[in-house]
Amino acid sequence: MYKRILLTGAAGLLGQYLRPELHKRWPIRSCDMRPIDKPLPGEEVATCDLADREAIFKAVEGCDAVLHFGAISIEGTFDQILQANINGTYNVFEGARRAGTKRVIFASSNHAIGYYPRESHIDSDAQPRPDTYYGVSKSFGESLGSMYWSKYGIEHASLRIGSCREEPVDRRGLSTWLSFRDLHQMIVRCLEAQRLGYAIMYGQSNNTRAWWDNSKVAHLGFQPQDNAEKFAPALLKDAKLENPEDPAVKYMGGVFCTDNPPKWPTN
Amino acid sequence: MYKRILLTGAAGLLGQYLRPELHKRWPIRSCDMRPIDKPLPGEEVATCDLADREAIFKAVEGCDAVLHFGAISIEGTFDQILQANINGTYNVFEGARRAGTKRVIFASSNHAIGYYPRESHIDSDAQPRPDTYYGVSKSFGESLGSMYWSKYGIEHASLRIGSCREEPVDRRGLSTWLSFRDLHQMIVRCLEAQRLGYAIMYGQSNNTRAWWDNSKVAHLGFQPQDNAEKFAPALLKDAKLENPEDPAVKYMGGVFCTDNPPKWPTN
Amino acid sequence: MYKRILLTGAAGLLGQYLRPELHKRWPIRSCDMRPIDKPLPGEEVATCDLADREAIFKAVEGCDAVLHFGAISIEGTFDQILQANINGTYNVFEGARRAGTKRVIFASSNHAIGYYPRESHIDSDAQPRPDTYYGVSKSFGESLGSMYWSKYGIEHASLRIGSCREEPVDRRGLSTWLSFRDLHQMIVRCLEAQRLGYAIMYGQSNNTRAWWDNSKVAHLGFQPQDNAEKFAPALLKDAKLENPEDPAVKYMGGVFCTDNPPKWPTN
Amino acid sequence: MYKRILLTGAAGLLGQYLRPELHKRWPIRSCDMRPIDKPLPGEEVATCDLADREAIFKAVEGCDAVLHFGAISIEGTFDQILQANINGTYNVFEGARRAGTKRVIFASSNHAIGYYPRESHIDSDAQPRPDTYYGVSKSFGESLGSMYWSKYGIEHASLRIGSCREEPVDRRGLSTWLSFRDLHQMIVRCLEAQRLGYAIMYGQSNNTRAWWDNSKVAHLGFQPQDNAEKFAPALLKDAKLENPEDPAVKYMGGVFCTDNPPKWPTN
Amino acid sequence: MYKRILLTGAAGLLGQYLRPELHKRWPIRSCDMRPIDKPLPGEEVATCDLADREAIFKAVEGCDAVLHFGAISIEGTFDQILQANINGTYNVFEGARRAGTKRVIFASSNHAIGYYPRESHIDSDAQPRPDTYYGVSKSFGESLGSMYWSKYGIEHASLRIGSCREEPVDRRGLSTWLSFRDLHQMIVRCLEAQRLGYAIMYGQSNNTRAWWDNSKVAHLGFQPQDNAEKFAPALLKDAKLENPEDPAVKYMGGVFCTDNPPKWPTN
Amino acid sequence: MYKRILLTGAAGLLGQYLRPELHKRWPIRSCDMRPIDKPLPGEEVATCDLADREAIFKAVEGCDAVLHFGAISIEGTFDQILQANINGTYNVFEGARRAGTKRVIFASSNHAIGYYPRESHIDSDAQPRPDTYYGVSKSFGESLGSMYWSKYGIEHASLRIGSCREEPVDRRGLSTWLSFRDLHQMIVRCLEAQRLGYAIMYGQSNNTRAWWDNSKVAHLGFQPQDNAEKFAPALLKDAKLENPEDPAVKYMGGVFCTDNPPKWPTN
Repeated sequence: MYKRILLTGAAGLLGQYLRPELHKRWPIRSCDMRPIDKPLPGEEVATCDLADREAIFKAVEGCDAVLHFGAISIEGTFDQILQANINGTYNVFEGARRAGTKRVIFASSNHAIGYYPRESHIDSDAQPRPDTYYGVSKSFGESLGSMYWSKYGIEHASLRIGSCREEPVDRRGLSTWLSFRDLHQMIVRCLEAQRLGYAIMYGQSNNTRAWWDNSKVAHLGFQPQDNAEKFAPALLKDAKLENPEDPAVKYMGGVFCTDNPPKWPTN
Repeated sequence: MYKRILLTGAAGLLGQYLRPELHKRWPIRSCDMRPIDKPLPGEEVATCDLADREAIFKAVEGCDAVLHFGAISIEGTFDQILQANINGTYNVFEGARRAGTKRVIFASSNHAIGYYPRESHIDSDAQPRPDTYYGVSKSFGESLGSMYWSKYGIEHASLRIGSCREEPVDRRGLSTWLSFRDLHQMIVRCLEAQRLGYAIMYGQSNNTRAWWDNSKVAHLGFQPQDNAEKFAPALLKDAKLENPEDPAVKYMGGVFCTDNPPKWPTN
Repeated sequence: MYKRILLTGAAGLLGQYLRPELHKRWPIRSCDMRPIDKPLPGEEVATCDLADREAIFKAVEGCDAVLHFGAISIEGTFDQILQANINGTYNVFEGARRAGTKRVIFASSNHAIGYYPRESHIDSDAQPRPDTYYGVSKSFGESLGSMYWSKYGIEHASLRIGSCREEPVDRRGLSTWLSFRDLHQMIVRCLEAQRLGYAIMYGQSNNTRAWWDNSKVAHLGFQPQDNAEKFAPALLKDAKLENPEDPAVKYMGGVFCTDNPPKWPTN
Repeated sequence: MYKRILLTGAAGLLGQYLRPELHKRWPIRSCDMRPIDKPLPGEEVATCDLADREAIFKAVEGCDAVLHFGAISIEGTFDQILQANINGTYNVFEGARRAGTKRVIFASSNHAIGYYPRESHIDSDAQPRPDTYYGVSKSFGESLGSMYWSKYGIEHASLRIGSCREEPVDRRGLSTWLSFRDLHQMIVRCLEAQRLGYAIMYGQSNNTRAWWDNSKVAHLGFQPQDNAEKFAPALLKDAKLENPEDPAVKYMGGVFCTDNPPKWPTN
Repeated sequence: MYKRILLTGAAGLLGQYLRPELHKRWPIRSCDMRPIDKPLPGEEVATCDLADREAIFKAVEGCDAVLHFGAISIEGTFDQILQANINGTYNVFEGARRAGTKRVIFASSNHAIGYYPRESHIDSDAQPRPDTYYGVSKSFGESLGSMYWSKYGIEHASLRIGSCREEPVDRRGLSTWLSFRDLHQMIVRCLEAQRLGYAIMYGQSNNTRAWWDNSKVAHLGFQPQDNAEKFAPALLKDAKLENPEDPAVKYMGGVFCTDNPPKWPTN
Repeated sequence: MYKRILLTGAAGLLGQYLRPELHKRWPIRSCDMRPIDKPLPGEEVATCDLADREAIFKAVEGCDAVLHFGAISIEGTFDQILQANINGTYNVFEGARRAGTKRVIFASSNHAIGYYPRESHIDSDAQPRPDTYYGVSKSFGESLGSMYWSKYGIEHASLRIGSCREEPVDRRGLSTWLSFRDLHQMIVRCLEAQRLGYAIMYGQSNNTRAWWDNSKVAHLGFQPQDNAEKFAPALLKDAKLENPEDPAVKYMGGVFCTDNPPKWPTN
């Protein structure tokens, strides 16, 4: 179905996992400002900064799909976020339009809706409630993707990813964890769909204590295979009663909803 | 629970499958204009045209439930549809009322809601959006069944059947397929329910990429066992990117939403 | 905007009111099986039965809008309804398609949703719950209109008219009354709309005790001027407590929900 | 997480099952007006009437969670209900507030919503529709718990328990059954939750024909393991068609919706 | 329509206003524990305590409608509330059932839903969120009324009254004010309705800044004539910016949501 | 209530109207990059570019409310939009946070939801569907305002303004027009509200053919006084039937949904 797929953020944690998995099906071009270790046979490499418009336009050329995973992935100063996540995401979408790309999959984040209380039971129609500049930039990307779909017919999915890593690391992760292979399945489902249109999907594994309702995108067929619950005994062993009004406990975004979210280095 | 059940369309594809399955539990009377090959022991046969009012009234006599599966099952001229599907369905419901029948299960169709975009996530409360005269006639039958329930207390289920056949035959079928045994389960659940009332249920197997939401009829306990996904590798092998605005791709009804739906022979 | 508008049922109660009102703005062609008394200057007349397909096709030719108000307007035998309301409505829509008509306004009825309890607070998305064959035929017309819009782009409004007459005549009418001039306004709004698309609208005046929620078609700008409440003192003067479970009291359709609805003459 | 949990109704059917299960994780204090047979090692016992305010206040002291399962559990005279279920529940909540208790789990009942028709598909936001004084008292307890959460921050879950017993005993039980171990899981999930807040949850096993929708409390992770369906063959063996308008068949509350609900002894 | 209507709380602020207004249409029997000053010609008087069951049963006899306005109308001790509002309301409903009364109108209160944030936009389906024992008792009365309607067919309206007095007295009153004549209209609409069934209605005038949505009871035709806005200039003259997280500002119940609601005298 | 209010975009069309109106109630500081003609007595002036962070921070100092109306107000290049509308809006919100400002009113736009079909009947919970980079930037501002409310407690309203000018100029304007005095009322309501919290409100006059549903912000009391309908005869005089699938006719954003939206000059 695809002759070449661009993956931005290819040198990041998720990108490194995705590269070989995706490349088994469709040739990929890996893009990052960091070098790509040991490219796979047939893998193309584009080394450039998301904020470098011309370089990004060039990287998208010849690709009929884009997986846009490059970004500052925690809180930053507004100027950091403005360059990498806002300007950078424009560069990717506009590059896709110029290149005639058919589909763009965007790594959005649960932090675009971080300020919903955990019991809210939200679905794909939930309005943005970002918890950081980072979260605002993800909401911006969803919004920009909506415009490119409506105006130019570029099919689009925004994946509101929870906590994508090897294993969940705290109680919150029992709800928000997304395993690598479930992330991969989400992407494949979006690429394979006969009609993708415009979709907002939550990136969570089949967790017993999951928060997010993907029923409005059920037609895409994402059926996660992993479940954070197997880590529950270890994670709950020393759990204590917590203050239900503590923002890190009350809201979906966890510690991002406090005054002290994890921060990108400035230099 | 039932001393005799009338099955119309008994010689059709679905009818042929259902006859022996149903007859194991409850005596059936098989009705079709075509001959019934090799009736089962104890099976009664009524050979008549749906448009023949007196014959249909007679066929329903003595039956405490009716499964109305007889119809022109693809697009026809309006006059064909008017006789077989509209007049014929009236004949069945009115016959049931006269005979004191308690429940009528009606084979409606996804083509009664064919013009919803595939991402609509519709449930039992979705208004009609038929894609053909055929679809309009199915919507008519649902509506007529509603009246017979409200006015005369005849319990009723309309099954909006997807693609009921041995195997799915195209990408769309990955979502719409209904296996024969899942069809059978749907019918049994409706017949067995302590209270059926009035129900609209989607006829789809437990497909990974299913479109329709049966949660409003969850109390009836339909839990399909088959999944079209096992046919996915074969069906997707040569799949291409398609135009998301092509009516056959955009809407639930598929090719019925184009100018060229499959057509019933005229002679 | 319109060079000629066809009005079916032009000799009926509503048609007689509408003819001169509409003709002030746009030339009309009045169609009925009964003769049209004293045609207006410039008014064209087409005398024919709704069930006469060729005659109806001919009547629609040259019209860029159709107001389809012809029908059996109370309960009839199924065969009466089948000919006049089901076959007849097909003839009108199909005639419109062949003639290149742009908009069809259909006089549907509250009896298409007559079996909702009065406190239901339903809107344009309410599923059919017809109370008679008459009501079923109106639901059929809405469904057919949906198909002609989706497939052929003919813009369409179905007006679920309450009780359209000079004055309300009973307690129920305090809720269901539609004055003639408010009916006229509804039609004008539908004809004038920059985009009509597909709309289901309830035909009720600005009644203090109105049941139906037109908010989903608020963009069309129907703002009724009359209110049945001015007749309340007379209509409630001798009112008694009634049985809340009596179908004529419980349901929107009133006496149509009983075993004894008003009936069309057979001969 | 808890240094001591109070269980009221500890000598009842559910209490007897729960005592050893809970005590494995957290020390319990068992409270009932009936004697507790063979207390477990480390189990504390408080023998008192729910209507005895001072005794209940004393029983709650030192407990950081309360499971309030004590009540008249079928229909009673209003005065019986007023003392045991209304006054008694106040005593428990007010005792909890005075003792600084963090969480109260309340055994509510499906009879708080017994008058919904079975096809209603209700969820945690369903308004009370009680079927008896008993049901009214359960609705009272939910409402009181809401106030203690909003005003005093006591986290709270009301469990609308279906039919909790060894096995389902009738057709209705195929939908309403809650196995003992699934009840236990519900309670554990509520106690373990990082943030419980205020939750209304339906107490039903993973029944094929379940009626109630727990999706709004899905974040708590209750995933029942049992299914009443295994009892279906036996329970349906001699099933007959029933009258769909019989209150015991039409409504969720079953026989509680008739004039003859099971009654508490008066003496 | 009514031969006699019982009004409880007849000597209270609202009762005093209502007595002469109602008596113009239908003979009333005024009930209060306080004496009724100067009974009107034809007005009957029943002096008794709401907690006196036999006296209340006797007071209801011969009345085909009851307006139950008697209650402790601010916060009390639980025991005060239990007797006057909970036991007392049971006495009224049970008396009505025994007397064959057809309709009961219950003065509920906005304090039954006091803990909704002001921007919640709630309607008749809002679940209880009481702010005091007083509010809990009003939720209890609504729930009890629901049971008497479902089980015994007594038609019922619960009026969630805002701030019913001569004039609004604070900023909150710009939203919650209910004028006396609008209260009277609400009651008349409920008594006059052809079918009342079970209704929950918010008691607010046509206030510019109203919070509550009565659209689900629009069929009853309550159209308030007064508007608190005319008092806005005076009430806002010295208004200051307030803390949006102060419970008295954040929630609908105002000062009832704080630790210091107005309290009924104890003696 | 306010000692000083900052108005950005003070020299623009809306700003010029608002300056004297607002200044009657509360002292204003007018900010624009263009000069302010004839400042009013007591009016402060701050001349600076929105993209100049330090200047904006300084302009906000000492203001307890901000009306942020400065922006590129039609389509621009992405870089123009990035500086003026994205970076500029950050500067205003962050300045407000640093200055301890209590409320920020943001001039958002209907172009943030321009791609909804006109019949969608959307309300304050509608997700972004922007039609231009301009629309994306307005969605960004709403999202940023949500974060500043959730994290820092700055109360916020985003006004999705339709067509704010002297008079409507085309058919679309019959729905989208907002008169200057209605704009002024919206702002005053937001400033006066006892609790504003976070609100999204549509900026349209009381137009007969209005599209947007402000019911979720009804508590704020915006009741527009003007109605575009008085311009209907002139605007509809030569109206023609239009193509319902033309993006400028189908979608709310009108010509902004085509390839040729009005564009900001580049130089």
